[in-house]
Amino acid sequence: MLQTGAQSAFAQMLNDGILTDIVVNAIGGSIRAHRAVLAAHSAVFRCMFSHDLREKEQSAVDISDMSSDGCQALISYLYGTLSEEEFLAHRSELLFAGDKYGIAGLKETCEKSLIDDVDTDNVLERLQMAHLYGLSALKRTCMTMLVEFKRVHRIPEDFREFARTGDGDLVAEVMESCRRQGYLPPWYDLASAGRVRNQLVLVPKKEDDPA
Amino acid sequence: MLQTGAQSAFAQMLNDGILTDIVVNAIGGSIRAHRAVLAAHSAVFRCMFSHDLREKEQSAVDISDMSSDGCQALISYLYGTLSEEEFLAHRSELLFAGDKYGIAGLKETCEKSLIDDVDTDNVLERLQMAHLYGLSALKRTCMTMLVEFKRVHRIPEDFREFARTGDGDLVAEVMESCRRQGYLPPWYDLASAGRVRNQLVLVPKKEDDPA
Repeated sequence: MLQTGAQSAFAQMLNDGILTDIVVNAIGGSIRAHRAVLAAHSAVFRCMFSHDLREKEQSAVDISDMSSDGCQALISYLYGTLSEEEFLAHRSELLFAGDKYGIAGLKETCEKSLIDDVDTDNVLERLQMAHLYGLSALKRTCMTMLVEFKRVHRIPEDFREFARTGDGDLVAEVMESCRRQGYLPPWYDLASAGRVRNQLVLVPKKEDDPA
Repeated sequence: MLQTGAQSAFAQMLNDGILTDIVVNAIGGSIRAHRAVLAAHSAVFRCMFSHDLREKEQSAVDISDMSSDGCQALISYLYGTLSEEEFLAHRSELLFAGDKYGIAGLKETCEKSLIDDVDTDNVLERLQMAHLYGLSALKRTCMTMLVEFKRVHRIPEDFREFARTGDGDLVAEVMESCRRQGYLPPWYDLASAGRVRNQLVLVPKKEDDPA
């Protein structure tokens, strides 16, 4: 009961731009916001605004690696006004921002949501996101799906592509997990694709993978 | 799920005093806060901080008619961190502040709470608060309790005091309501107590009220 007034006031503070003191510049647009709100969520912003950085003097911060829609979603999250729909539409950018600006709650929210709808179509992409951003629960979920549930056999083309272009350490980890489970995934062309850089001693299969 | 991060960040923004830009001076203490949050809740604060008033230049606002504890409760409410216990402890001051600074949500929250625990012991005090701050639902509740449920007969001493010292218009309103219900409350000494100023034509009872 007591919180309702505060929530709607923070929404109004953002939406009506009440006494804003910073402009956030993203790709294709700018958003007016409050330093204190950004700083309360992120040590990176806190540092930016507390020291004699360009951002302090100019009353502007450049987020040149986010779209203005993604950035708007980020700001809405910080003020507690982000809808579930907007969140899902910009989840990848929000995860990127959560990692870059050290917003632990946002990273956690993204990770939980990414775990919720991981499936065979996106498991390799999710695995790479998990590895890149250090999301251990998401990584565990993907590894379980790929290795223990053997979904890796259902996506031979995707997996070949992952084995060729994915992060070397991660590919090696998946392979090692499969090996421990007593089988090899469909990566017959892996050794020839330059996996030597991963220090993997592979004995490639002689015949083509049955896919 | 999405709101959790924002709530705790706003709490931190207040509790850790992150980039505060205003000092609120109350009786016996000061609290550091953010103009934008105060302004988002209240047109009175918005006006104070937006124009060239003393408050804008000095980065301070004096609330010299509130205790520092009451003021702390007010600020906590604005940031959404006020506990039910603190709210109840400072409800009267919060109602006063909600009225003075035009914080409709706070007034409404106070009114609902005051309706919840109105009883024979406090009904006259509540009725006067309702009248003073224009809280029509609370006023209706008190009038119903006093007049329709005839609780007025259970508190003759309190009611005499109210009739002597309470707001004239309000006393007249209660009397008129009782009259419409077909009875007179225990105000035998009312006419002699100077109620003539209320334009009430009373026919005072001849004998003492049986109380």
